[in-house]
Amino acid sequence: MASFRYKQVIVVRSDLKMSRGKLAVQVAHAAVAAFLEAYIKRREWAESWLAESQKKVVVKVETLDDLLSLRERAENLGLPCALISDAGLTELEPGTITTLGIGPAPNEMVDLVTGSLRLL
Amino acid sequence: MASFRYKQVIVVRSDLKMSRGKLAVQVAHAAVAAFLEAYIKRREWAESWLAESQKKVVVKVETLDDLLSLRERAENLGLPCALISDAGLTELEPGTITTLGIGPAPNEMVDLVTGSLRLL
Repeated sequence: MASFRYKQVIVVRSDLKMSRGKLAVQVAHAAVAAFLEAYIKRREWAESWLAESQKKVVVKVETLDDLLSLRERAENLGLPCALISDAGLTELEPGTITTLGIGPAPNEMVDLVTGSLRLL
Repeated sequence: MASFRYKQVIVVRSDLKMSRGKLAVQVAHAAVAAFLEAYIKRREWAESWLAESQKKVVVKVETLDDLLSLRERAENLGLPCALISDAGLTELEPGTITTLGIGPAPNEMVDLVTGSLRLL
């Protein structure tokens, strides 16, 4: 099996108890937004990831504070990331922060931030 | 409330009974891949959608044939789209077609293809 050097990780707040549809949209928002961040700031990472199989992994945290801490750590490492808040048309209060997209970036750098988190 | 002129619709096969995590990754793959198609083929649509709130909607069909019919209709209308097949590392057989991303494109054009489908 091919091994991949770049990945994107999307972190989801499990405490919000989102429906399948809401969750999928929030993860997709994070994936597109973090990709665009990477494309602007580290184009070589974005293009390398596209040339591989665009690996994506979805993991979870239990609180908003955990999500914000991860973003801070990702930013300190220079990783492209995007924090997503919901428009609040259904299910959630407007502005609720739901997900964090990190990368695409080199696997070992992303793992410094999300390596210990559980898969969704 | 602001009204949006562009949207992206992601169609999911409900017959596959994917887990929440698998579903979220497949929807995210479709969102990024269809966005890139739009960016290459109809950049003005992609950029207008980015400048709005990047509206995404997830809907469902019950069979692979339904998904393939939608892709044909979308392509005949000149809509950017991306059909996603799973790498098959978990849950699904390798190559299983899971989702179809359509757009970003003008609402009324996307509705010609997916307007009658139910939300996931």
